[in-house]
Amino acid sequence: MSSMSVTTTKNLMLFSGRAHPELAEQVAKHLDVTLTPQSAYSFANGEIFVRFEESVRGCDAFVIQAHCAPINDQIMEQLIMVDALKRASAKRITVVMPFWGYSRQDKKHRGREPISARLVADMFKTAGADRIMTVDLHTSQIQGFFDGPVDHLFALPVLAGYVKQTYPGQPLAVVSPDSGRVRLAERWADTLGGTSLAFVHKTRDPRKPNEAIANRVVGEVEGRLCVVIDDMIDTGGTVSKTVEILLRDGASDVIVAATHGILSGSASEKLATCGAREVIFTDTLPITDAKRFPHMTVLPIAPLLAEAIHQVFADGSVTSLFDGNA
Amino acid sequence: MSSMSVTTTKNLMLFSGRAHPELAEQVAKHLDVTLTPQSAYSFANGEIFVRFEESVRGCDAFVIQAHCAPINDQIMEQLIMVDALKRASAKRITVVMPFWGYSRQDKKHRGREPISARLVADMFKTAGADRIMTVDLHTSQIQGFFDGPVDHLFALPVLAGYVKQTYPGQPLAVVSPDSGRVRLAERWADTLGGTSLAFVHKTRDPRKPNEAIANRVVGEVEGRLCVVIDDMIDTGGTVSKTVEILLRDGASDVIVAATHGILSGSASEKLATCGAREVIFTDTLPITDAKRFPHMTVLPIAPLLAEAIHQVFADGSVTSLFDGNA
Amino acid sequence: MSSMSVTTTKNLMLFSGRAHPELAEQVAKHLDVTLTPQSAYSFANGEIFVRFEESVRGCDAFVIQAHCAPINDQIMEQLIMVDALKRASAKRITVVMPFWGYSRQDKKHRGREPISARLVADMFKTAGADRIMTVDLHTSQIQGFFDGPVDHLFALPVLAGYVKQTYPGQPLAVVSPDSGRVRLAERWADTLGGTSLAFVHKTRDPRKPNEAIANRVVGEVEGRLCVVIDDMIDTGGTVSKTVEILLRDGASDVIVAATHGILSGSASEKLATCGAREVIFTDTLPITDAKRFPHMTVLPIAPLLAEAIHQVFADGSVTSLFDGNA
Amino acid sequence: MSSMSVTTTKNLMLFSGRAHPELAEQVAKHLDVTLTPQSAYSFANGEIFVRFEESVRGCDAFVIQAHCAPINDQIMEQLIMVDALKRASAKRITVVMPFWGYSRQDKKHRGREPISARLVADMFKTAGADRIMTVDLHTSQIQGFFDGPVDHLFALPVLAGYVKQTYPGQPLAVVSPDSGRVRLAERWADTLGGTSLAFVHKTRDPRKPNEAIANRVVGEVEGRLCVVIDDMIDTGGTVSKTVEILLRDGASDVIVAATHGILSGSASEKLATCGAREVIFTDTLPITDAKRFPHMTVLPIAPLLAEAIHQVFADGSVTSLFDGNA
Amino acid sequence: MSSMSVTTTKNLMLFSGRAHPELAEQVAKHLDVTLTPQSAYSFANGEIFVRFEESVRGCDAFVIQAHCAPINDQIMEQLIMVDALKRASAKRITVVMPFWGYSRQDKKHRGREPISARLVADMFKTAGADRIMTVDLHTSQIQGFFDGPVDHLFALPVLAGYVKQTYPGQPLAVVSPDSGRVRLAERWADTLGGTSLAFVHKTRDPRKPNEAIANRVVGEVEGRLCVVIDDMIDTGGTVSKTVEILLRDGASDVIVAATHGILSGSASEKLATCGAREVIFTDTLPITDAKRFPHMTVLPIAPLLAEAIHQVFADGSVTSLFDGNA
Amino acid sequence: MSSMSVTTTKNLMLFSGRAHPELAEQVAKHLDVTLTPQSAYSFANGEIFVRFEESVRGCDAFVIQAHCAPINDQIMEQLIMVDALKRASAKRITVVMPFWGYSRQDKKHRGREPISARLVADMFKTAGADRIMTVDLHTSQIQGFFDGPVDHLFALPVLAGYVKQTYPGQPLAVVSPDSGRVRLAERWADTLGGTSLAFVHKTRDPRKPNEAIANRVVGEVEGRLCVVIDDMIDTGGTVSKTVEILLRDGASDVIVAATHGILSGSASEKLATCGAREVIFTDTLPITDAKRFPHMTVLPIAPLLAEAIHQVFADGSVTSLFDGNA
Repeated sequence: MSSMSVTTTKNLMLFSGRAHPELAEQVAKHLDVTLTPQSAYSFANGEIFVRFEESVRGCDAFVIQAHCAPINDQIMEQLIMVDALKRASAKRITVVMPFWGYSRQDKKHRGREPISARLVADMFKTAGADRIMTVDLHTSQIQGFFDGPVDHLFALPVLAGYVKQTYPGQPLAVVSPDSGRVRLAERWADTLGGTSLAFVHKTRDPRKPNEAIANRVVGEVEGRLCVVIDDMIDTGGTVSKTVEILLRDGASDVIVAATHGILSGSASEKLATCGAREVIFTDTLPITDAKRFPHMTVLPIAPLLAEAIHQVFADGSVTSLFDGNA
Repeated sequence: MSSMSVTTTKNLMLFSGRAHPELAEQVAKHLDVTLTPQSAYSFANGEIFVRFEESVRGCDAFVIQAHCAPINDQIMEQLIMVDALKRASAKRITVVMPFWGYSRQDKKHRGREPISARLVADMFKTAGADRIMTVDLHTSQIQGFFDGPVDHLFALPVLAGYVKQTYPGQPLAVVSPDSGRVRLAERWADTLGGTSLAFVHKTRDPRKPNEAIANRVVGEVEGRLCVVIDDMIDTGGTVSKTVEILLRDGASDVIVAATHGILSGSASEKLATCGAREVIFTDTLPITDAKRFPHMTVLPIAPLLAEAIHQVFADGSVTSLFDGNA
Repeated sequence: MSSMSVTTTKNLMLFSGRAHPELAEQVAKHLDVTLTPQSAYSFANGEIFVRFEESVRGCDAFVIQAHCAPINDQIMEQLIMVDALKRASAKRITVVMPFWGYSRQDKKHRGREPISARLVADMFKTAGADRIMTVDLHTSQIQGFFDGPVDHLFALPVLAGYVKQTYPGQPLAVVSPDSGRVRLAERWADTLGGTSLAFVHKTRDPRKPNEAIANRVVGEVEGRLCVVIDDMIDTGGTVSKTVEILLRDGASDVIVAATHGILSGSASEKLATCGAREVIFTDTLPITDAKRFPHMTVLPIAPLLAEAIHQVFADGSVTSLFDGNA
Repeated sequence: MSSMSVTTTKNLMLFSGRAHPELAEQVAKHLDVTLTPQSAYSFANGEIFVRFEESVRGCDAFVIQAHCAPINDQIMEQLIMVDALKRASAKRITVVMPFWGYSRQDKKHRGREPISARLVADMFKTAGADRIMTVDLHTSQIQGFFDGPVDHLFALPVLAGYVKQTYPGQPLAVVSPDSGRVRLAERWADTLGGTSLAFVHKTRDPRKPNEAIANRVVGEVEGRLCVVIDDMIDTGGTVSKTVEILLRDGASDVIVAATHGILSGSASEKLATCGAREVIFTDTLPITDAKRFPHMTVLPIAPLLAEAIHQVFADGSVTSLFDGNA
Repeated sequence: MSSMSVTTTKNLMLFSGRAHPELAEQVAKHLDVTLTPQSAYSFANGEIFVRFEESVRGCDAFVIQAHCAPINDQIMEQLIMVDALKRASAKRITVVMPFWGYSRQDKKHRGREPISARLVADMFKTAGADRIMTVDLHTSQIQGFFDGPVDHLFALPVLAGYVKQTYPGQPLAVVSPDSGRVRLAERWADTLGGTSLAFVHKTRDPRKPNEAIANRVVGEVEGRLCVVIDDMIDTGGTVSKTVEILLRDGASDVIVAATHGILSGSASEKLATCGAREVIFTDTLPITDAKRFPHMTVLPIAPLLAEAIHQVFADGSVTSLFDGNA
Repeated sequence: MSSMSVTTTKNLMLFSGRAHPELAEQVAKHLDVTLTPQSAYSFANGEIFVRFEESVRGCDAFVIQAHCAPINDQIMEQLIMVDALKRASAKRITVVMPFWGYSRQDKKHRGREPISARLVADMFKTAGADRIMTVDLHTSQIQGFFDGPVDHLFALPVLAGYVKQTYPGQPLAVVSPDSGRVRLAERWADTLGGTSLAFVHKTRDPRKPNEAIANRVVGEVEGRLCVVIDDMIDTGGTVSKTVEILLRDGASDVIVAATHGILSGSASEKLATCGAREVIFTDTLPITDAKRFPHMTVLPIAPLLAEAIHQVFADGSVTSLFDGNA
């Protein structure tokens, strides 16, 4: 016989950057695998080094990294891991970035700006990524920045399910903190079922040019439990201001829900004191104890990631996890 | 001497597909050049052939084509022109598509869908396009689909300027026909100055599951001249329904303004009879006489395109045409 | 254990564009699979939308589309299907185009022309195609336009087999309608065995410059049953004229055989009335009832496509289907 | 002032591989430039080294190399020159290959073959070539193998002009040595004006299966001066056999004309003794004294190359050199 | 007239990241241009934003950034600047990285490691860089990691010139701190002229397996002024140990010279106290006051960069700056 | 059922160019497979043709070729084989080049030079190679020239093991013939255990500028058995001179060991007569009988290649063959 023939097997291996190892551990646990052991460290000038301790040849690699601060280190570490996997003959490389770094820079807001969210997509392609898995993109168009499959998971059902269960039987209003998230608010309203919808409109009175911008609520919020929603909360300024306005305008109570808790600077303090009854996140980004406060709730994202990774590995359906919508 | 040296000149040449030759002619007139003569025809089975009648070697080519119906023919013709220019040694090729075809398919709305707006970008890249010039994208993120410079022009100042001049001194409300265009409505409101803002929210009463969807206006429109805005109007269904609702809810009058008049099927009829006082478009897409009706206004886009082409050719600034915002 | 390991399976899935669903149905039947259900429709302005109704993750996809009129719609639909498959994580995508659109534009006949057949190849590559399967290319060099495997199938054995069986024991001449198809005629002659060979030479008498072109038969046709061959027949002008000339020059009878029946405009009428005893095609392109006439014979191509798809899926040999010649 | 601005000049530089320096010298003379000095040598194991002695930064480089035996060395040398030019910041690199090596392998004749002519195109692209200039491709489709501009020059007018002038007033027949070159013969016939056309058909009598192949002339040659044409002559076997057959079939005399004189092995001897009255080539490939014989004529190709290079450099028209046909 | 034609000018614009603005300022001063004004800042989570304040359309852009700690931020900022320049239609983009980050990871030292220096090259290519300019690469092979021109400048003549001038008339020995830099030491020896050569060999006595590694000096150093050289000094451990060994082995005195002063952690302290008479760097990386000590000398690299940038812009010769060696 | 599903198998097929068939045969024997039958021949002008005699569809192909003289033919043949495999639907293509041709040109030694080792990597990528397997690269950085996995095997353990076994109990010195191989010498010393280390330094006495270069031994060699090492020996000049110098300087005996025996010109003669006691190579390159001499030893490389190929095919670990170092 002229050739050697064997049955092919495929082999799921899980890798984790150093940004949020707990999340990767939980995903591993849900999948009943262990994280691939590796050496990873940073040199004094910040250069990152990674080496895997086991053969990765032919594996179906899933590389999990949170794009949290210091975000450029996290992204570079994940890129370097992908490069090492490519050169070590991994068969397929899926980059798992629960939060897609630089996703807010998804267009040129003005001239001579970068489109960094596309740059991130291209860099992972260049490094050797075959696929990307992510959660609740800032705008869905970002999927189109990557030249390959993107598994776009939705945390909204998890968050909305929690709200529904925790606050039953109350008249609700879903509120977008600005005009750009009204569509997201509408999706929330659909999931919660028949709620009111509102958003905050930043406006300037043209007759009083020197006066400050006024934030006006457009939509019906009086006497309702307002759910202020967003995909991410960074400095917390806009959202905490929104909470105050809603209470001023007669909301019966206000809760805040967002997928990604970036929580930079004094964000936690602002959120803790803005008057919101509860603030809800998932742990796509690590939320340290220092950032937590009594009425903050953090829902685990690992079950969703683990299930999606399993579907991808087994050639199942990720779309089916979301009733055909992903 | 070992080499031959001359001063370099650059040479702007303008090309037009067959979709909307009048627009190209007007651009040419504004630039004081003539369109490059060409042979272009379709074979009986629909295959398109193009040949340029003059040498294009070394030129700075601008290829204008409207992505109107039958849109696949228009796109293919423009792709073929780009291929011919590349192979004939044009130095730089700018694709001018005032309306970016397939821009509504800019994301996967559900699983197993294409992202055709990215596909269009990639096909032009593959054919040989160096740059794209376009007007009022459906979403700004589409800029990021092309791996190269995109000059994104805004017709909004032209449209809003016309509205301001034509309807002075009236209390206005800018209205988005759905939750996805509220941001655009806000940009209009900023340009018009201190207007009210509203949008139509499609909602379903969860207690009456079999009942139809209700369209509710969120925001203040009573007694105001409502400006229903959109980037494009295709079948006209949503917009004409929006006009009716606004009038029902007490709007003093309603006008409609959009950049791209696709106007498929009975769109013109719907718009003509929906109760709007005036309907305003630009001519980024050809609007035939048959599609026009008495209170429709079509503003010319050629001056803007010509000025932008001139800036691109002369290494000037396109951003400066929009106060730094493009 | 650190990883999860399973045996790999592969899964053939068949997809069909809307150009020629009967052909895809027949291929599916021969393979004993069903076509993957999908939603596909065109918007009023011609934009095409496709969505698959079942998970395609990890499948070995074969996408069948006829490149018939309106050809740009058919090509764009197939491109969009490929894009959707790529983004939905199909493992391998084979584009099945029984007729390769724009294959006649396979070179610059004169300066400043496109090479559209290459453009088509590149666009499918860009959309995500891994492989192409096609039948009887206009020129074999087109295989080299695609950067990847091309399975080039031959319908000639089917056509020639039919002629051999239907017209036994007659002195034959294979005739090329022009000087560019003589090589193809020779291949036919080899397959039929020891026939005469001829072609029509368009010539202009240099002494009479204002006189029309004369079509001269080069080769021996008198008293023979002439088989006029071509890879495709579009308007039917050249072929029907060839039939007339052959009859004028003493051919005992004439039949016409070609793989691809484009049959634009009045082609069927011309062929029906040109004097040919029989006209033979395969159904690589749909031939509607309106295009058919009594002495037209259409041979099914589905068995060949199905067999080739099966070989590709099963890592068998396509070459072996043609005695090592494909 | 924030920036430094100067007028741009462009600078033509000519480079020559070591395969056929005389041709490059002649081109340089026609252009009135000198070849760029370089160090080029081969190591003992065949590795080639090239270094340019002058700065090439920003130049418009034309790299001339003949693809003659040993052809792989010549191709590799030209590739290495292109790589060195790219890395030394040449602005534009045009590969001048008067004969395109491996052009006969422009398709898979049977299964599991390479398409080496495409591979050559891709390798030059990879090395850094922006453009290719070549003469009389084996098939015009090869232009489409390169992803960029190809200047395809025709030597046929030069060759046919010489024949017309040298053999005036005789009844001519243009003869293709096989069925694949009939189209080329027709182009010759058009240029010479109203000549007869013929080709040699290799046939096998099906009733005598063990008998050898017969070469039959299809077309009228008796009493005529036959011009046997081809794009290239390699071993000379087919052509010299064709000459013999034509004389046997009553040709008054036979001449042979081809663009590329590969002339491997005993080709010259065969051509010298086959009975042809004259054998005509251009010097796209070097024809050493040892390969020449009394009635061989070699026409210079340098004037054509020089003129085309000048047009390319000056953004003129190459097409115009051939009445719009290139 | 059918087209518009003007003489082309080119326009040098200089850009600086925020890592080492003083260096960029000095380069600008030497070139007599000003740095292009920009907005650049980091969000709280580390995301970087850049926007240029002037039109960059058509410019010849040089983007200077030091790859110092925190290195991933510096690299990402430069990538984002390149992306913004590409999208804003800069004509050519040269990345100036005096020190090439991650250059020590230029190969897999062991299995399953990345080759990060190649990754850096590819990321800049992906972002839109046309060219790279750098100084004293860790290994010259890194040039080959970038698919395009790399201007590799040498600081060695500056450093060696300083040593020659400062320490005339002494018997010298050039010493490599390990076996991998002996070639570099030899280049130093050639430049200084006829010096002795040595290196430190880390060895382990095989008969005493548990004993520590010994550092042995190979070569003649006794009674000589030793010049310990390296391309970069990071933690300073190896170099300061080398100094001690040399003094132990009888060196009359020791000086240290390296191009890139990374100087992480307690490097400065080690160098200041290791016994070296003088430590010499260039300022390719910023050396803050805190890192400086009395007998440290920092030579300016800006004159070399400015001269090279000018040659690149003016299509002059960079090679000539180094007697043909760059 | 909508689809057809089968278990996937993979199939190792071995291919050999014509440069060194014996090596491929030995590898095949070790793997217990046979080489895939093929037609391979060269046309008179040097063009190479390859066709495989069996279906290769879906196979895991390993293509072995020695890059020996005439090296450009060997490289081109391997490229053409890869192209044919790609177009014939091989699933994965690993290029096995035991010696990487042009690896000495791995950087620009001076300005305006190529980086041919990178060009070779890019050409194989372009042709369709997925992976490269090679032995003892000239510099390890060359791995980074290929955009994909490179299995870099080490012959040093084989060579050093032989030396250790053959020359036990002697005081050794490992000697690099120049300053660029000292690192390699150190690796040898580590493997042999606690040997002395030395290199030859080419120096010029600055006080006697007209005098020739002197070769000085740096390091301790007197009374020791010197092992002169290198990755390759080409003309043998440097190495044989090194042997002479070492003997002159008091070495007790000298042996030479290198992985790649290029042995151009009179290399064998030089090595045979230089005074070395034994000269040791592997057969990564063919060493003909004519090149052999009595005290030359050639160690087989096939076992190492076969083992590595098997690991790659079976998704095992190549790194583990070298204790984690490959």
